[in-house]
Amino acid sequence: MALLMDNQFGNLPADNAVNTKLFLESVAYLPPFLDCLGSKLFAPIKSDISGNITKIRGVFDKDPAKYATLQQIVEAEKETHGTEWPKVGATLALMWLKRGLCFIQVLLQSLADGEKDENNPNLIRVNITKAYDQALKKYHGWLVQKIFKAALLAAPYKSDFIKALSKGQEVTEEDCMASVRQFLINFTATVDAIYEMYTTLNAELDYSV
Amino acid sequence: MALLMDNQFGNLPADNAVNTKLFLESVAYLPPFLDCLGSKLFAPIKSDISGNITKIRGVFDKDPAKYATLQQIVEAEKETHGTEWPKVGATLALMWLKRGLCFIQVLLQSLADGEKDENNPNLIRVNITKAYDQALKKYHGWLVQKIFKAALLAAPYKSDFIKALSKGQEVTEEDCMASVRQFLINFTATVDAIYEMYTTLNAELDYSV
Ligand SMILES: CCCCCCCCCCCCC/C=C/[C@@H](O)[C@H](CO[C@@H]1O[C@H](CO)[C@H](O)[C@H](OS(=O)(=O)O)[C@H]1O)NC(=O)CCCCCCCCCCC
Ligand SMILES: CCCCCCCCCCCCC/C=C/[C@@H](O)[C@H](CO[C@@H]1O[C@H](CO)[C@H](O)[C@H](OS(=O)(=O)O)[C@H]1O)NC(=O)CCCCCCCCCCC
Repeated sequence: MALLMDNQFGNLPADNAVNTKLFLESVAYLPPFLDCLGSKLFAPIKSDISGNITKIRGVFDKDPAKYATLQQIVEAEKETHGTEWPKVGATLALMWLKRGLCFIQVLLQSLADGEKDENNPNLIRVNITKAYDQALKKYHGWLVQKIFKAALLAAPYKSDFIKALSKGQEVTEEDCMASVRQFLINFTATVDAIYEMYTTLNAELDYSV
Repeated sequence: MALLMDNQFGNLPADNAVNTKLFLESVAYLPPFLDCLGSKLFAPIKSDISGNITKIRGVFDKDPAKYATLQQIVEAEKETHGTEWPKVGATLALMWLKRGLCFIQVLLQSLADGEKDENNPNLIRVNITKAYDQALKKYHGWLVQKIFKAALLAAPYKSDFIKALSKGQEVTEEDCMASVRQFLINFTATVDAIYEMYTTLNAELDYSV
């Protein structure tokens, strides 16, 4: 995550188009970030997200000029795939990836806003639960929700999470949160832009797994 | 699983040495068997088992003559890897793989023995729980145990499981169980032989994940 924060997401242009190359470079730091959460239990999530990224990169690499922005990819697939679309290709991969990004965005924002369980100030369960409820819960059936609840207990302590966010150095929570706030500026704008694009292009689905 | 049963494990020779090539051929049918359990939730288990198989095959392919039996692999690694061993290489992969095999062995045996929950005769939870308790539970920390308990609810109904075991054909439970009993003969002997080898070579570990 230190790495993630060192690699800020790019500034968006006026039309909010997300540059595919820069986006792929930034999200590449996500899977290693999951390792810093400390539990091998998150391996299935890591491999799900890595799979999304690989799929998007695969399309981009076929024609980097044609697919310069994420929107160009989704629009091209809409043309090509007929009724299968949007549950197909990079459109599907980005649909799920954006939910993982949204999860992380809400989690970091909630921490930066100082939201906490007053009785257990060193736990981040309230923040994770908030992120889960907003970003993922409705796309998970009751069984995956149940597993998530169990997995929640593997979440790191806030102090360990902050240490991991800070490359293992001992920094104060306040210093760490200042970097998080800085990171959130372009990150939030990017996530929002992708969500808006899915709404505009009618590319969003709400089936659950 | 139909496939799994069509590809019976080999007969063991007098010295109980397990032929690596035949073993790898038979276990190759395991990951697709997991698909027939019907839930994508089992994907992490499938990938864990596939990883084990790939690792053992990788060692075998380097020198099929030298590694003709599983025991030769484990012994060679004991020589090469020093104090890291046995938590290393194909020795570690087979240590975990045999637990998955044991799980399946106990599950099928319990079904073949007619063990059931009299109040819910079409559920296989009692059989799965028995298999889990014997084969895996002690190697899982409380958190993974909790996740397992949740995942248990995704287990197929007995009738669907039997249908899947029978290539989707409608066969009677009794006919299906007759094939299972046949399959279990060499399968059980193979699993037992691997467990004995781990005991004899002092290759077993009991850390939990
Ligand atoms: C011994 C006991 C064994 C018990 C076994 C239990 C197994 C439990 C498995 C848990 C589920 C792992 C998470 C994966 C869930 C995935 O099912 C979903 C949908 O996944 C999508 O599915 C699509 C098809 O519908 C395509 O295949 C997508 O793939 S495609 O690229 O091909 O298009 C794919 O991403 N992704 C999700 O829900 C996304 C989850 C993102 C989470 C982000 C959180 C990050 C931070 C976490 C910090 C706390
Ligand atoms: C959105 C919510 C997200 C929540 C996320 C929750 C994620 C839940 C993850 C569940 C765990 C999945 C199962 C995998 C567990 C694995 O951790 C263990 C140990 O795995 C071993 O570990 C070693 C190092 O210690 C090596 O890496 C081995 O790898 S090596 O090859 O490199 O040496 C590896 O197999 N294997 C196991 O416990 C084996 C399990 C076998 C089970 C067999 C059952 C088959 C039939 C099932 C029918 C019911």
